[in-house]
Amino acid sequence: MTIQYLAQKLVLVREQKPLIHNITNVVVTNFTANGLLALGASPVMAYAKEEVADMAKIAGALVLNIGTLTESEVQAMIIAGKSANEYGVPIIFDPVGVGATPYRTAVAKRILEELKVTIIRGNAAEIANLTGEDWSIKGVDAGDATGNVAQLAVKAARQFSSIVVITGEEDIATDGTQIYSIRNGHPILTKVTGSGCLLSSVIGAFAAVELNKLEAAAAALIYYGVAAECAVKETGDNRPGSFQIELLNQLSLVTPKEIEQLARVEQFQAEGGE
Amino acid sequence: MTIQYLAQKLVLVREQKPLIHNITNVVVTNFTANGLLALGASPVMAYAKEEVADMAKIAGALVLNIGTLTESEVQAMIIAGKSANEYGVPIIFDPVGVGATPYRTAVAKRILEELKVTIIRGNAAEIANLTGEDWSIKGVDAGDATGNVAQLAVKAARQFSSIVVITGEEDIATDGTQIYSIRNGHPILTKVTGSGCLLSSVIGAFAAVELNKLEAAAAALIYYGVAAECAVKETGDNRPGSFQIELLNQLSLVTPKEIEQLARVEQFQAEGGE
Amino acid sequence: MTIQYLAQKLVLVREQKPLIHNITNVVVTNFTANGLLALGASPVMAYAKEEVADMAKIAGALVLNIGTLTESEVQAMIIAGKSANEYGVPIIFDPVGVGATPYRTAVAKRILEELKVTIIRGNAAEIANLTGEDWSIKGVDAGDATGNVAQLAVKAARQFSSIVVITGEEDIATDGTQIYSIRNGHPILTKVTGSGCLLSSVIGAFAAVELNKLEAAAAALIYYGVAAECAVKETGDNRPGSFQIELLNQLSLVTPKEIEQLARVEQFQAEGGE
Repeated sequence: MTIQYLAQKLVLVREQKPLIHNITNVVVTNFTANGLLALGASPVMAYAKEEVADMAKIAGALVLNIGTLTESEVQAMIIAGKSANEYGVPIIFDPVGVGATPYRTAVAKRILEELKVTIIRGNAAEIANLTGEDWSIKGVDAGDATGNVAQLAVKAARQFSSIVVITGEEDIATDGTQIYSIRNGHPILTKVTGSGCLLSSVIGAFAAVELNKLEAAAAALIYYGVAAECAVKETGDNRPGSFQIELLNQLSLVTPKEIEQLARVEQFQAEGGE
Repeated sequence: MTIQYLAQKLVLVREQKPLIHNITNVVVTNFTANGLLALGASPVMAYAKEEVADMAKIAGALVLNIGTLTESEVQAMIIAGKSANEYGVPIIFDPVGVGATPYRTAVAKRILEELKVTIIRGNAAEIANLTGEDWSIKGVDAGDATGNVAQLAVKAARQFSSIVVITGEEDIATDGTQIYSIRNGHPILTKVTGSGCLLSSVIGAFAAVELNKLEAAAAALIYYGVAAECAVKETGDNRPGSFQIELLNQLSLVTPKEIEQLARVEQFQAEGGE
Repeated sequence: MTIQYLAQKLVLVREQKPLIHNITNVVVTNFTANGLLALGASPVMAYAKEEVADMAKIAGALVLNIGTLTESEVQAMIIAGKSANEYGVPIIFDPVGVGATPYRTAVAKRILEELKVTIIRGNAAEIANLTGEDWSIKGVDAGDATGNVAQLAVKAARQFSSIVVITGEEDIATDGTQIYSIRNGHPILTKVTGSGCLLSSVIGAFAAVELNKLEAAAAALIYYGVAAECAVKETGDNRPGSFQIELLNQLSLVTPKEIEQLARVEQFQAEGGE
């Protein structure tokens, strides 16, 4: 896969303006919608049990995010997800904070059991929690343990038969066989709430226009990381307010050319197999 | 009606600082509240069935927005709306995404049946859905079909005995007899989530201080469009993050003088009658 | 207490990055989370009855804010609060808009009766409503009535056996015996929605790292006011959009040195006693 090829996926999103149905947390709704608009996608948020099935089936992707889950919202997620599954709409699942409470862990498991999830995106601790690894004992700082993060992602991908994306200093996207390692982005992203949630929705937008969902995920990660790098060039690395706004600008401004020039991506094969 | 007269309505809002009760979607709450504060109004959000009647009756206007409706919120809207009707508080209704799902359409109809709505604001497709027109078949791009948009607004105004505002490249406000056509604003507004929702609340603020609700709507449209034009002069037309913030600045900075200079408004009579 | 001593509390927050569990209103979630991140704390929002007890017990502080309360959220607040009380986690209570409706007033009383609240923060009208004073008749503009504000805070602190913070032109923090009077900040804060709500969460972050909760509150008030002053120097006092973003920047940038230089704080004893 050439970098040019992945960079061109951005053009597809901007041309097709896919409708992305988000059932997400109350902290990031605005930022997510504005980020998707800046990218060129078409965001919709809908939560009512009475309408989520209808909305999900006309969407290009469904993004489920449990950041501020409530029981009623979880039920809506399941209804929306079943509709998405029925109509072949890809589901992106963001298990925010899974492991922080038993309820959150139980809900994440329920979603993974009841729905066919296309892509799971989380940080290393979240993905480890899903797979049952005792990651926090090994140390939460994913940045130090590069090899293990890819290994963890591969394990999770095989366990859930999903594409798994783990973000951190190094981003990993894998289907359990192919692995993309991406080193774009900037640590200031961790100072902006919802930067991971928005990324999940951006992955949804790329997955809506690209049949190969692993390439969609990799293309989205590179695009998003490059936009963050362009933003931090404008604002410096200690102004999180300005960075948040400039990230929205750059999501709109970034070109395939810039992506080609700035991409830091490697592709390799996972060891072992099923 | 002179432009000076409409421009002065802004002064009324800033002097009286009307309390605007919003029952709105979770995507735009923050932006709406900050926009109303920048204008000089006093926003309040309240959703609990136990308190919305009390809040609506002390408000200068009640804004109902179904962007992320849930059944419980719809019930609160009806309770708040009945209280507003009883106490003579104008209701602004924003039927976000009506037509996208059957539930959304049913809720919009229920609101229009159970409440006396003072002003309805939507885009052409939304208003057409309310009136039962098959607008999407005629083509959704309201910008090309100026004559039809005014005609649609007049039809809706007569059907619902409300003032109807349709926003797009040309904004229309009509009571079914008088028509205002306003050509302020900028396309980048469509890149900021909630720019239409905030406009509905801004119309509420003007309706709170002006007895003639059609003039209130026209004055609000001109003011908002001028603020957007002033903002885009500062940020350019491809930085949606910066534009969103600068719009808040300009909602605070715009003067009646600037409104007079930049207003592009025409007034005419609707053809036919009831 | 020297100013240097209070200024150093900021270092503690940045080093310890306390987890702050917010059950707050839908208007301010994003701004609150970004403000806490900018400060260096670690925000979490969680609302589900099924998980709030688990989240509250691992938090450094629990912030309860009734800005857009619903019955289900109030129940979650009580559950979270009881867990916080059991595990010694300080509770900060922000009675937004108490007095505006009977329901809001009833909920605030219920929270104060069922939970041991560590710190209550509101404006003068809100605190007066809690104590049963007919403050609105005396005039709502707390800025004119300095002496009375301190008196009101002392009365409330004694009545609820809590630390009470009243913010306005002059901020007061008192345990009913010691009084801090702080004159930092800027009136443009009232033009940014959630600036008070974020302050409550910032107080939570300081309370999470400092055993003396009155000093924690005073240190938080000075820090926040100084950040606002630094922000307004950058943006001027009539650009609320830019100010909101710059405040986030300054919450990240402000140093103990700047706090020492800019603090305007006095400490004195309350008259009378219990």
